[in-house]
Amino acid sequence: MALALSLGRRGLGRVWPNPAVGCVIVREGRIVGRGWTQPGGRPHAETEALREAAGAARGADVYVTLEPCAHHGQTPPCAEALIAAGVARVFVATGDPDRRVAGQGLEMLRAAGIIVETGLMEHEARIANAGFFAKTELDRPFLTLKLAASLDGRIATATGESKWITGPEARRMVHAQRARHDAVMVGGGTARKDDPALTVRDLGVAQQPARVVISRRLDLPLMSTLARTAREVPVLLCHGHDADRALRQTWEDLGAVLLPCEAAGGQLDPADVLRQLARHGISRIFCEGGSALAASLIEADLVDELISFTAGLGVGAEGLPSVGALGLGRLSQAARFRLAETRPVGADVMTIWRRPGL
Amino acid sequence: MALALSLGRRGLGRVWPNPAVGCVIVREGRIVGRGWTQPGGRPHAETEALREAAGAARGADVYVTLEPCAHHGQTPPCAEALIAAGVARVFVATGDPDRRVAGQGLEMLRAAGIIVETGLMEHEARIANAGFFAKTELDRPFLTLKLAASLDGRIATATGESKWITGPEARRMVHAQRARHDAVMVGGGTARKDDPALTVRDLGVAQQPARVVISRRLDLPLMSTLARTAREVPVLLCHGHDADRALRQTWEDLGAVLLPCEAAGGQLDPADVLRQLARHGISRIFCEGGSALAASLIEADLVDELISFTAGLGVGAEGLPSVGALGLGRLSQAARFRLAETRPVGADVMTIWRRPGL
Repeated sequence: MALALSLGRRGLGRVWPNPAVGCVIVREGRIVGRGWTQPGGRPHAETEALREAAGAARGADVYVTLEPCAHHGQTPPCAEALIAAGVARVFVATGDPDRRVAGQGLEMLRAAGIIVETGLMEHEARIANAGFFAKTELDRPFLTLKLAASLDGRIATATGESKWITGPEARRMVHAQRARHDAVMVGGGTARKDDPALTVRDLGVAQQPARVVISRRLDLPLMSTLARTAREVPVLLCHGHDADRALRQTWEDLGAVLLPCEAAGGQLDPADVLRQLARHGISRIFCEGGSALAASLIEADLVDELISFTAGLGVGAEGLPSVGALGLGRLSQAARFRLAETRPVGADVMTIWRRPGL
Repeated sequence: MALALSLGRRGLGRVWPNPAVGCVIVREGRIVGRGWTQPGGRPHAETEALREAAGAARGADVYVTLEPCAHHGQTPPCAEALIAAGVARVFVATGDPDRRVAGQGLEMLRAAGIIVETGLMEHEARIANAGFFAKTELDRPFLTLKLAASLDGRIATATGESKWITGPEARRMVHAQRARHDAVMVGGGTARKDDPALTVRDLGVAQQPARVVISRRLDLPLMSTLARTAREVPVLLCHGHDADRALRQTWEDLGAVLLPCEAAGGQLDPADVLRQLARHGISRIFCEGGSALAASLIEADLVDELISFTAGLGVGAEGLPSVGALGLGRLSQAARFRLAETRPVGADVMTIWRRPGL
């Protein structure tokens, strides 16, 4: 199952709106088939593993990280394929929360006389598929917030200089993280100031994550890198219902996807922004700031994972803070993250914090 | 020599104004004597090791982390003692920069026919004795700056609440760090706001570090913990030449030591503050803030080691920053620290940064 989980992770960021599943088929102690969800979400992991195993699947044990599907979608159900291949036992890490599957895949296998065991490495499987579970159960994507700051928590000098606080190894790690998410997200201020491409560079990825910009008024530069490349890699713009109609049309003409979201207290409601992105199919989102967006996500308790890169220099209190105002009354009201990992990345420190329980 | 260095470190924070030296005597492959500088700075490491070795020192090899002294101070010179004991060879990690010793200890040993080798683990020895070298060569103590902050670099909420951002394990580590320094230092604002004791608690130390407060005007509360305990553990007050005479007298009557320092630009010049502390004998100082003092030390490039504790919560931009204004023009002007270590301490992350080359 550990191997199946590892195979499944290969699909992260590339299979949305489908889950990134892994599958291993073992017969007489020998691995005869391995599969994972392919880019774009199809074929499914089981199909791939069965194809590799061919006749050797008969009487074999199957390890799969998520309950095999039972419904006819754009592919025939995997449960049927497993039955047709004549496998003996199926080990499933965790059930599929999708209402169209939810136990029916397991039922179908059992009804065909296959021995089914569930719960093997379930915690790991839920974390590996955290995006899919968040989307299905919470109606929002799994959200990773990146902060790259000086040792006193500043992301730029008073004059806005931010290139480069962290080093090349940290930036490379950021690109690797982008590749493991369905979409990369920034606030409108960052989009205006940095003119970012938000693509994965120098890592040879076949499928780029979508780019998401949060801008209530859609007051984003029309001559920007994002505008110019919106037909090459998806650009999703989350805007207010009150955004200018002509601007909406212009962005649609440029190839962007427009997602109208609810406003709350003068800015877009981050919970509704994430809801609209989930409904568009996004299950894992990587937010790269700026300060105001980071603060609104932390304040709304929407951050599942926080990856912090810290550089060995002080910028001072005049610098731009990594997290904007939070309106925190007392320390006891602050949401605490659990430390998952800390280690050097080049000359900087990378620390991963997670929501408790994850 | 590694053992000698390890023994020497036992004296850190307890032997000032003397260096924390370690000494191991080996005869026929067997350790016959071990010594380290004793609390208060005497007896010296060599004396202790020779006492343990007794007659076995004759013809033995001696490993000592710093050049043995050659001058008659409050103890007879260690070089003489080694000669009298009849040792065969002396391995010295690094020379003593003290003008009264500077090579004379080695000369004295060689003149007596003892084989002397220097430079064994010299880098490690210079780091272990960094305080002593800074005091002798730079006329200032080795300075460690501690920052304990939220993941967005805040040390308190907007209302000043700071108890507790970091957890009990981090606080315990802070006490262990205090014990390894000659003095613990805070700015006047922190002394007024927190009424700190700045002592080492729950670690059973025999000798407490001195407490240092930087306050140009000496406007510190006379009913504070520091005022009440100034006769138990030294309190050193660095103040301006223009501080009120009556206040100076009051603090002297309370048992504090007053160190007048130069002012520069409306505040005390941090370089002169450290110079006065070095002249008072302090070789290792642990600064615990607040923001303004941390900033003035970073700005003056006086920080040798920076220990950062980071907690898994955001406080937001309204919170008190860990480092005050630095007047930094461009990022390239910021002093960069080298990453020495990062690891979890309880629920927090401890990261140690050092001046490049250390």
